Amino acid sequence: MQLEISDMEQTESNTNLLEQINYPADLRRLTVTQLPEVCKELREDIINELSRNPGHFASSLGVVELTVALHYVFDTPYDRLVWDVGHQAYGHKILTGRRKQFCTNRKLGGIRPFPSPYESEYDTFTCGHASNSISAALGMAVAADLKKEKRHIVAIIGDGAMSGGLSFEGLNNVSTAHNNMLIILNDNNMSIDRSVGGMKNYLIRLTKFTTSKRYNRARYRIARLLSRLGLMDEDRRKALIRFGNSLKSMAAHQQNMFDGLNIRYFGPIDGHDVTNLVRVLNDIKDMEGPKLLHIHTIKGKGFAPAEKAATIWHAPGRFDPETGKRIVKSENGQPPKFQDVFGETLLELAEQNPKIVGVTPAMPTGCSMNIMMEAMPKRTFDVGIAEEHAVTFSGGMAKEGLLPFCNIYSAFIQRAVDNVIHDIAIPNLHVVMCLDRAGLVGEDGPTHHGVFDIALFHSIPHLTLAAPMDECELRRLMYTAQLPDKGPFMIRYPRGHGSVIDWQCPFEEIPVGKGRKLKDGKNVALISYGPIGIIAARAIEKAEAEYNITIAHYDLRFAKPLDTEMLDEIGSRFDKLITIEDGVKEGGIGSIVTDYMNDHKRHLQITRIGTPDNFVEHGTVDQLYHLCGMDEEGICNEIDRLLKGH
Amino acid sequence: MQLEISDMEQTESNTNLLEQINYPADLRRLTVTQLPEVCKELREDIINELSRNPGHFASSLGVVELTVALHYVFDTPYDRLVWDVGHQAYGHKILTGRRKQFCTNRKLGGIRPFPSPYESEYDTFTCGHASNSISAALGMAVAADLKKEKRHIVAIIGDGAMSGGLSFEGLNNVSTAHNNMLIILNDNNMSIDRSVGGMKNYLIRLTKFTTSKRYNRARYRIARLLSRLGLMDEDRRKALIRFGNSLKSMAAHQQNMFDGLNIRYFGPIDGHDVTNLVRVLNDIKDMEGPKLLHIHTIKGKGFAPAEKAATIWHAPGRFDPETGKRIVKSENGQPPKFQDVFGETLLELAEQNPKIVGVTPAMPTGCSMNIMMEAMPKRTFDVGIAEEHAVTFSGGMAKEGLLPFCNIYSAFIQRAVDNVIHDIAIPNLHVVMCLDRAGLVGEDGPTHHGVFDIALFHSIPHLTLAAPMDECELRRLMYTAQLPDKGPFMIRYPRGHGSVIDWQCPFEEIPVGKGRKLKDGKNVALISYGPIGIIAARAIEKAEAEYNITIAHYDLRFAKPLDTEMLDEIGSRFDKLITIEDGVKEGGIGSIVTDYMNDHKRHLQITRIGTPDNFVEHGTVDQLYHLCGMDEEGICNEIDRLLKGH
Repeated sequence: MQLEISDMEQTESNTNLLEQINYPADLRRLTVTQLPEVCKELREDIINELSRNPGHFASSLGVVELTVALHYVFDTPYDRLVWDVGHQAYGHKILTGRRKQFCTNRKLGGIRPFPSPYESEYDTFTCGHASNSISAALGMAVAADLKKEKRHIVAIIGDGAMSGGLSFEGLNNVSTAHNNMLIILNDNNMSIDRSVGGMKNYLIRLTKFTTSKRYNRARYRIARLLSRLGLMDEDRRKALIRFGNSLKSMAAHQQNMFDGLNIRYFGPIDGHDVTNLVRVLNDIKDMEGPKLLHIHTIKGKGFAPAEKAATIWHAPGRFDPETGKRIVKSENGQPPKFQDVFGETLLELAEQNPKIVGVTPAMPTGCSMNIMMEAMPKRTFDVGIAEEHAVTFSGGMAKEGLLPFCNIYSAFIQRAVDNVIHDIAIPNLHVVMCLDRAGLVGEDGPTHHGVFDIALFHSIPHLTLAAPMDECELRRLMYTAQLPDKGPFMIRYPRGHGSVIDWQCPFEEIPVGKGRKLKDGKNVALISYGPIGIIAARAIEKAEAEYNITIAHYDLRFAKPLDTEMLDEIGSRFDKLITIEDGVKEGGIGSIVTDYMNDHKRHLQITRIGTPDNFVEHGTVDQLYHLCGMDEEGICNEIDRLLKGH
Repeated sequence: MQLEISDMEQTESNTNLLEQINYPADLRRLTVTQLPEVCKELREDIINELSRNPGHFASSLGVVELTVALHYVFDTPYDRLVWDVGHQAYGHKILTGRRKQFCTNRKLGGIRPFPSPYESEYDTFTCGHASNSISAALGMAVAADLKKEKRHIVAIIGDGAMSGGLSFEGLNNVSTAHNNMLIILNDNNMSIDRSVGGMKNYLIRLTKFTTSKRYNRARYRIARLLSRLGLMDEDRRKALIRFGNSLKSMAAHQQNMFDGLNIRYFGPIDGHDVTNLVRVLNDIKDMEGPKLLHIHTIKGKGFAPAEKAATIWHAPGRFDPETGKRIVKSENGQPPKFQDVFGETLLELAEQNPKIVGVTPAMPTGCSMNIMMEAMPKRTFDVGIAEEHAVTFSGGMAKEGLLPFCNIYSAFIQRAVDNVIHDIAIPNLHVVMCLDRAGLVGEDGPTHHGVFDIALFHSIPHLTLAAPMDECELRRLMYTAQLPDKGPFMIRYPRGHGSVIDWQCPFEEIPVGKGRKLKDGKNVALISYGPIGIIAARAIEKAEAEYNITIAHYDLRFAKPLDTEMLDEIGSRFDKLITIEDGVKEGGIGSIVTDYMNDHKRHLQITRIGTPDNFVEHGTVDQLYHLCGMDEEGICNEIDRLLKGH
């Protein structure tokens, strides 16, 4: 197959320009006419690098021109670029002193997956969770204002991230606080064009005028009339919901109507025309007051397969840069992913139980709710990047007798803690909250590790907290959770493959609050929670052989309510106990069990294994388990220490 | 003084109508012409009752007509009213079977402070935290749709609550999910009128047409053009920021621009004209698709003093219903409130340290940041009801070298857990987070108790968690927190009075992670955290006399990092330990200390005292302390049990 590469016809051209750019200051020594060549080389660099070393792909290709234009026009790092989410920032990393190290991207000890202030002064704020850029940038802009620094602050946010409530709270404050910040709305959903129709051309025409410095202030007042902050959209899968669904701020002819808004709108303009981007940015950057520039880009721009299927090419894994063929590892004979088991089981249950509905905040593919979504489109709700709403909306449905399965990644449920407390737990509503990506997630690093959920939720009354050790257990827990009167029910499970190939075990109720003894033993007890129990079982085998002891292995299954009978057995039979979980050690199941033992006057010596009181960096999950002492070797070491009384 | 009561000239009229209304069905038997009299009587009822038994006042007066109209037009409880926040719902409570019990409002065992599904089938969802009504109501509307029930769902939300990101996420989804819900935007800020100007009249005129059933669908399509979702406002104190700051969705003449919005806008109309409200609600209630009715009301309507000073009369305490004179208890000779100490100290520190800025999400008066706000308006930021933004915005300022003191009530920081983790803790930014209203808050009940913060945050790396035992300690901790390089620093303190009259002690650094021994003893050790240590000290005195023992009393001061030296001393000297805190027992300082002791092989018997694993209802703080075993008696009982080995 011969690949069509829209902007790559001359792949073999020399890469002289990029070779000369170590930092943005070098870029700024070039002429504007050289910038298209820089973009071309940067795009090739990203494609070639990502083909070997997988990462987020399509987003970074979409903002090549924007990235070059921003660093060309703004005096970075003195001027501040605040990226939202940050998986589009590879071009930014390459241009800011990290081209040589870019081959270490996402690897243990290498370049971080998202911009990070720990890595570069060009990375101004934590990236990873959507929608924080406007608020953070506003803080910086207000600080610059108070410190009388003539610094430019630019937030770059996608139309998806705009749907988060935090973006709205930020915009709300941008319009009233004294600041000069610029928001770039990077709109990469093509169907927005269609919904805009004739207005789009009007806006483009207007932009040409309003962004020229030669036009006087009166002209800018007209521009201000166009304070359109976003547009409704539904992508082809009728799933993702975009910013503008409600934020339809439209042009009116009553000028006074906009007196309060105070965010000047420019655009939309083509985000792949680097020369025009430079001109527009230069024109508007010194205008006083907050500004929003709306640009259109194409996710995957310049790499034809990615342009055609942006979702697949969001993070495609390895591929051949010439043919565009993805190098997909065969998964034959492997146990299924927990995600697939979740998705298939949810559909199965929903077919049996008409009350079940599905809710996901913009992650239907990631969590595999798309399986139910395709079969039952009316009973599944993708609410966009809106975790708070996802939970409260589920509460409303539960109040009326439906049974929502609300799937949210563990790291993102951190956004909805109050909604869980106030809208689910207090009214004791029957909502099943499935926390996907619980535990260390690997290459996405500290912002994405799902390690806090147990600590965050075990203190909340009325909740049931459960974790399956394998795929069959996940099915049984999901089945159990949807039985009548189960109240708020939270199930955490990790990203990736489980351990059971024949996962389609029959549905069977698990009594809430019942753990299980996997194996008996005499010298030490070990309690595991979740699939890390599989590693623990291997460690036990090894330790028993090595130290000539026997170890009893218990699967806690429920962090809340506790299996008091099982814990009493452990408390009465053992004086040495190890707990292990894929989550933060402080406040996890180890702490819960320790409290229980103390409360019941069982004075065992307890060793808790879990992630440390530090943010764990990125790397493969296995590498991180090793670093945290959560692999076979780490567990064996702890058994040894416990036996020796250290 | 003779009171001007705008709508109360005939206070002495009989209250026959209200006497006949036990439930909304009774109300619906009246004619529309009788409704103004019902409103008058209901208003008098609220004024008279609240004058004796304090509670939220001005908000409920503002929605008397709306409440009557809603229950008159809609078939409650089959139709669902979802109140937002709920402090405006006294009229609703009186009309829905709770008139007789209304004298028990906010009292232990009495009517709850906010609508609660546990109390009445007319109360459809948990109220207390702003901005959840749209999401919850949408869930109900979607459920009705799926279940093919012809139920009406109405969310009633104030312009203040509209600024929360959750509202925006909800609106965003309302515009895409299939539903027929009605949102009532209760806009009680008069200055919105001023900013609207000529458009207002246009909207009112349009409403008359669009809300009439006789007009055909084409007419409604014109109405749809006016999808104005809110308006900018700043109240007279230049503090509160309202919904519309950015949500300026305006009328345009390109009809296709609004195809995506799908929320029909009606209004604004006068929210005190009950007859017209009934007409409009009847006209629009059966229209298909989501609708928003914008009404204008006056907070405190019908009680002249409250109309003039709505902030003071939000919750005025007792007052004379005839003269409008508030019955203010003398506070001479009393220790100051923690809030006042916070406010005065913040200003003092800000005068010395030019980096300090203040951030509050809509609580400048509640937390006393108004003191700094008045003295330093440019260095204080009221960001509206937007806790997430408040934290991330603080992070942005800290990144640029400012030192934000971000004050958020403990119950509301639950909304910003991810922002604390992602935007403050991961980048290790120096932001001082002051958690006001930490611990049991009394009459506001379970939604407002600030009992989860220790459990939520102690697992988060990089954070310092501290609690002052008295006002001087609060000053010292605030001083300490703003010294260089302190990183993320969280200070929790309760609502109300402290224990030290001469609170203006000199500033003095407290070494981070250092507790203090308040008193030595031999038989038992007691560790307290925060002002509950004062109660513990009294209990210790009593127990020592009663049981002829001595008890050592330690003030932990820092839940993180721990004073390991102090804990080692306790661990080595005692075998019985009591911990007490004003927060949830599971996962609080008791659990933290228990883990520490176990980790260091100190097998003391530890009794943890704190709030139970249940949502604590409303009552006075003293009553609730008693119920939770956190008063002198409860602590003494635990000491007794511990001594006896129970």
